Amino acid sequence: MLAKTSVDGSLRALRTLRLLVLVSLCVFISVSAASSPAQEEDSAMENIVTEKKAEESHRQDSADLLIFILLLTLTILTIWLFKHRRFRFLHETGLAMIYGLIVGVILRYAVQVPREPRVILPSCVNSSPATLLVNVSGKLYEYTLKGVNSGNEMTDNEMLRKVTFDPEVFFNILLPPIIFHAGYSLKRRHFFQNMGSILAYAFVGTVISCFIIGLLMYGCVTLMKHLGRLGGDFFFTDCLFFGAIVSATDPVTVLAIFHELQVDVDLYALLFGESVLNDAVSVVLSSSIVAYQPQGDNSHTFEAMALLKSLGMFLGVFSGSFSLGVATGIVTALISFLFTKLRDFQLLETALFFLMSWSTFLLAEACGFTGVVAVLFCGITQAHYTFNNLSPESQDRTKQLFELLNFLAENFIFSYMGLTLFTFQNHIFNTMFIVGAFLAVFVGRAANIYPLSLLLNLGRRNKIRSNFQHMMMFAGLRGAMTFALSIRDTATYARQMMFSTNLLVVFFTVWICGGGTTQMLSCQRIRHFSKNVQLRLIYCFSFNRVGVDSDQENSVSKQRDEKTYKRRSTKQESAWLFRIWYNFDHNYLKPILTHSGPPLTTTLPPCCGPLARFLTSPQAYENECQLKDDDSDLILTDGDISLTYGDITVSTDATGAHTSSGLAVDDLDRELAYGDHELVMRGTRLVLPMDDSEPPFTDHLRM
Amino acid sequence: MLAKTSVDGSLRALRTLRLLVLVSLCVFISVSAASSPAQEEDSAMENIVTEKKAEESHRQDSADLLIFILLLTLTILTIWLFKHRRFRFLHETGLAMIYGLIVGVILRYAVQVPREPRVILPSCVNSSPATLLVNVSGKLYEYTLKGVNSGNEMTDNEMLRKVTFDPEVFFNILLPPIIFHAGYSLKRRHFFQNMGSILAYAFVGTVISCFIIGLLMYGCVTLMKHLGRLGGDFFFTDCLFFGAIVSATDPVTVLAIFHELQVDVDLYALLFGESVLNDAVSVVLSSSIVAYQPQGDNSHTFEAMALLKSLGMFLGVFSGSFSLGVATGIVTALISFLFTKLRDFQLLETALFFLMSWSTFLLAEACGFTGVVAVLFCGITQAHYTFNNLSPESQDRTKQLFELLNFLAENFIFSYMGLTLFTFQNHIFNTMFIVGAFLAVFVGRAANIYPLSLLLNLGRRNKIRSNFQHMMMFAGLRGAMTFALSIRDTATYARQMMFSTNLLVVFFTVWICGGGTTQMLSCQRIRHFSKNVQLRLIYCFSFNRVGVDSDQENSVSKQRDEKTYKRRSTKQESAWLFRIWYNFDHNYLKPILTHSGPPLTTTLPPCCGPLARFLTSPQAYENECQLKDDDSDLILTDGDISLTYGDITVSTDATGAHTSSGLAVDDLDRELAYGDHELVMRGTRLVLPMDDSEPPFTDHLRM
Repeated sequence: MLAKTSVDGSLRALRTLRLLVLVSLCVFISVSAASSPAQEEDSAMENIVTEKKAEESHRQDSADLLIFILLLTLTILTIWLFKHRRFRFLHETGLAMIYGLIVGVILRYAVQVPREPRVILPSCVNSSPATLLVNVSGKLYEYTLKGVNSGNEMTDNEMLRKVTFDPEVFFNILLPPIIFHAGYSLKRRHFFQNMGSILAYAFVGTVISCFIIGLLMYGCVTLMKHLGRLGGDFFFTDCLFFGAIVSATDPVTVLAIFHELQVDVDLYALLFGESVLNDAVSVVLSSSIVAYQPQGDNSHTFEAMALLKSLGMFLGVFSGSFSLGVATGIVTALISFLFTKLRDFQLLETALFFLMSWSTFLLAEACGFTGVVAVLFCGITQAHYTFNNLSPESQDRTKQLFELLNFLAENFIFSYMGLTLFTFQNHIFNTMFIVGAFLAVFVGRAANIYPLSLLLNLGRRNKIRSNFQHMMMFAGLRGAMTFALSIRDTATYARQMMFSTNLLVVFFTVWICGGGTTQMLSCQRIRHFSKNVQLRLIYCFSFNRVGVDSDQENSVSKQRDEKTYKRRSTKQESAWLFRIWYNFDHNYLKPILTHSGPPLTTTLPPCCGPLARFLTSPQAYENECQLKDDDSDLILTDGDISLTYGDITVSTDATGAHTSSGLAVDDLDRELAYGDHELVMRGTRLVLPMDDSEPPFTDHLRM
Repeated sequence: MLAKTSVDGSLRALRTLRLLVLVSLCVFISVSAASSPAQEEDSAMENIVTEKKAEESHRQDSADLLIFILLLTLTILTIWLFKHRRFRFLHETGLAMIYGLIVGVILRYAVQVPREPRVILPSCVNSSPATLLVNVSGKLYEYTLKGVNSGNEMTDNEMLRKVTFDPEVFFNILLPPIIFHAGYSLKRRHFFQNMGSILAYAFVGTVISCFIIGLLMYGCVTLMKHLGRLGGDFFFTDCLFFGAIVSATDPVTVLAIFHELQVDVDLYALLFGESVLNDAVSVVLSSSIVAYQPQGDNSHTFEAMALLKSLGMFLGVFSGSFSLGVATGIVTALISFLFTKLRDFQLLETALFFLMSWSTFLLAEACGFTGVVAVLFCGITQAHYTFNNLSPESQDRTKQLFELLNFLAENFIFSYMGLTLFTFQNHIFNTMFIVGAFLAVFVGRAANIYPLSLLLNLGRRNKIRSNFQHMMMFAGLRGAMTFALSIRDTATYARQMMFSTNLLVVFFTVWICGGGTTQMLSCQRIRHFSKNVQLRLIYCFSFNRVGVDSDQENSVSKQRDEKTYKRRSTKQESAWLFRIWYNFDHNYLKPILTHSGPPLTTTLPPCCGPLARFLTSPQAYENECQLKDDDSDLILTDGDISLTYGDITVSTDATGAHTSSGLAVDDLDRELAYGDHELVMRGTRLVLPMDDSEPPFTDHLRM
């Protein structure tokens, strides 16, 4: 026993040592890898062959990408340490930014690579073609247009230019998986229950926030012009554009903590739903503002036609992207519904799912809509319909795949954000503008949350309490979307100043607001799960761990839960609107698109009998008998609408906040990790309140 | 009952109908998506703004990519149909090529998009810088060098140019996951058992094949020159280069059928191992041949120094890439060994694994080595060490992730291959060259397999029988690697002719050889599993399906198997070489790098006691008692070296080939699908023959 303890101790010491060595090795490699090939470039310059140069450039690209990979690796190792030690003041994204900052500082001040001589051609041509062929000593070299050169680059450090990615990478490669994942994990009962409020915050709120920020910034900019602090043009449309891009909230840090602490699900749903949807609104809004171009020379003035055109564009692009996303989701659901035997080949199934989701993005972009928005609604549709048709293995696989992609993309963006604070060459930090922006962002968020909550509370029976409102105000972090939108175009003075300011806003909100979430939660007395309640949860879920037969398991645990917890509030908001939608969805869409749902023969009027029989899948009949479908989350008892099932019911029943149990902490923690995991798996079922009882379910329960 | 049957029938009819609609819809969308934005380009041309153009180009890119996504979707749906109906004459890669061909024909002959006017600049400069700034009416436009324009493009169809990917995409994005996956799934006992033969085929064989093909092609080319059938230069180095790239075999089709039919594992290991390793040899060989450049004007002659340089480069690049790959693998193993608690966060674990594997590629490329080769050896190392340290969930996740990436990349490459036959604009089809190449490829393969087998059989106790040799000869398909290597550079006449010829070689081998595998197997009387034996297998694995506790389950089923099947041949080849390696690996590397393996305290000499205790993980002691480690696949009985465990032993015991059982076929099929799946899971354990019995295991068994 003694020997074992000493082994343990020495092992721990060894591990810490090795950790240190590894970390320093990582940093060393990343920096040396980045600098060495660039230095070689000089010696290779003698032999000016195109292939050599292309090879060098490829090596340099590899080295640059390697920096980010090693940064992410470091982030993962550190964040593991934080998770293991339960530090909640810094989320992985915040950490990624810090590491990015450090590497940015090193690259900027420690590595000096002289700029490659660039050739400026006189105006041989009077247009800018996409491809240019240059005749160099008999050979034709092909050049492709990269964009307009902004010209005012401050330093001549080649290294900094090299680590700068094409801004479109963020929008076309990194954002889609993040947004899709958000949509795909949105399949939560509470999201649909709070749909009305979420839509209000996301649409009305974002527009309010955009215009408030825009107006305030216009005031600020006008003041700056008077004081002579403005170094270039800054029009009202620029202000509005700033308002639009900075209105996209991204409370990933806050939500991670909410999830970990099992904070109130309504609050979670409100925040998550708002943040997911306002990204979409913000993208389309900003592109509509850019499209506002009054005709003639007299630009930057008000013109009704241009405004209408912008408005039309907003509606057109949004509804187009929305329909496209939903359409692809439905096609995928149909395919997985028709090719039921695909379930036997999980690889094919997963690949198909992945490809169809990706094609949504491409299709939307090819049609001139916004791919990111389409992908979001595709994700929601996939989660709602296609997910039910997948085999359990593929359900896990797709979830895990998009979880991984989301994780990598998110941390990549945040570490790039940190890096770019020092490596971006056209920063314009204007103190007045920054102060104004922070104020405007604060006021804009307040103008979104408080008035809307007031209005919504008039209609809601389940009020949004003031501490929830404060929390939502506090959780208005800015993140990946704001960054991707503002780095997309940094050609003008206004855009450069916006970009620099946005970076600071993101840093501040992620570090300060994100880091202070736990404090804010306890300050606002927002109850979350105690360990005791979590333990009970684990008990409920421990049956379910293997994840093979969760449907059957569900119904068992549900019946148990039903007896245990019946205190669910009967006050449900938005029911009037969504009962219509829910009925339609449950009676017609689900049976047509998925194998869950009741057979159409029971939901369609008798006159449509043959059609109903034709369209109903044989499994639907089985489901009818076995109560095996997705909607079985909703268990109705004799006309009562108390909703009862595992995860959610416990949450509202959790009154013993902050009580801690005296169990062995380490084992418990591991158990909790599993429990959390299961919670996510189980938490993604849509259930809506209904007070008219459905014949098949209630009959079944009465039996 | 009657009603149900009629519902079934009508449902089936409906499904077929819907399938047809879907497929035609897919094709329609893919083609219209590809053509419509291109046509819009014309109308948009009025407003020549750079941003507009960039946007158009982005939309076009999205549409092009969409074609491929929809192609892959179609491939998946069709291949599912084939798998479901058990058609074995066409593999998914062959099918992807066919669809690619069809779309290629459509794009070439049905869609005519006039070429965008290209501007050719006179030689304003006398070098070719990487970046070019062009002054167009006051604004500086930035252009980046894309490469030398070959000039002799036959058609002016813009569409064809647009669907052409940058060749480096294949090498840097699509090949790495394929190669990594190959390495990662190479963790099979029989691979290590046949290591000697595999290395011989892969190294000696590929070099032989390369030179034989090179010489034959040189003869062919010389003859063509005499007959005046050659339209350009074709040097001896070009012939050798052709030999190198066409020597990379890719029997993915054959192996899929082998796997499905459970063909002899030794044959499987030989073919798979050879194909994986000869890819690496072929890459390095071809780059070494390109590097052969005699100095001075007198190029394309023999020069000893240049040859030595090439040879040195071959050795340097190969060993460099090898060491890099192994090193990164070991670093990952160390990290996962040290950060044991990472197991609690599977997402972090999987992300880390993915990033480390990717960084191998980037690191190798940044250092000037070959990323693909490094990734291969990294994959092998990861499978051998890191895999053991991962949590079961992460083991599944990583396997599934790379399986998916491999599947997508492979089918993408093959469908692009099909497309490119019609869309590539510089094809040179020379009948004589093609006939010569087919002959040379055949002779080269024969010169690899038969003489080497003869030599190897001298040393092997478990001979490679002649029917195995014929099968290996037959399974010399060419695939992704040959394609990626030959599309990389199509600048000269010789390279263009090679590319066209290689395409035909790939098509022929994949369709004809791949499609005829089942026929060839029965023709060569190579026995494979009957359904009876498979049923027995299912019985063995059915316990194991959930995959949670496979280690413990293994030992149970193994002990059972041990009693049942003891007829395993005792003749083991290569034991003398690999026993040394195996002992070292098992006694020192595994304990240091993984949690499996015996504690170092038992394997190191007593004088190193403190060091051993310091380095041994506490889990190793537990493992010692529980026989829980990876090597427990190796069960030794009293000095006998008969190796006994589930999957493999049954296979050699399968004598009742082609007997069919009278069980319900459909249920059985599903069972078999599961069984196969399990087989893969279980089949990836390394075990090596040892006739000196290891104390811990034998002791345990004797107890």
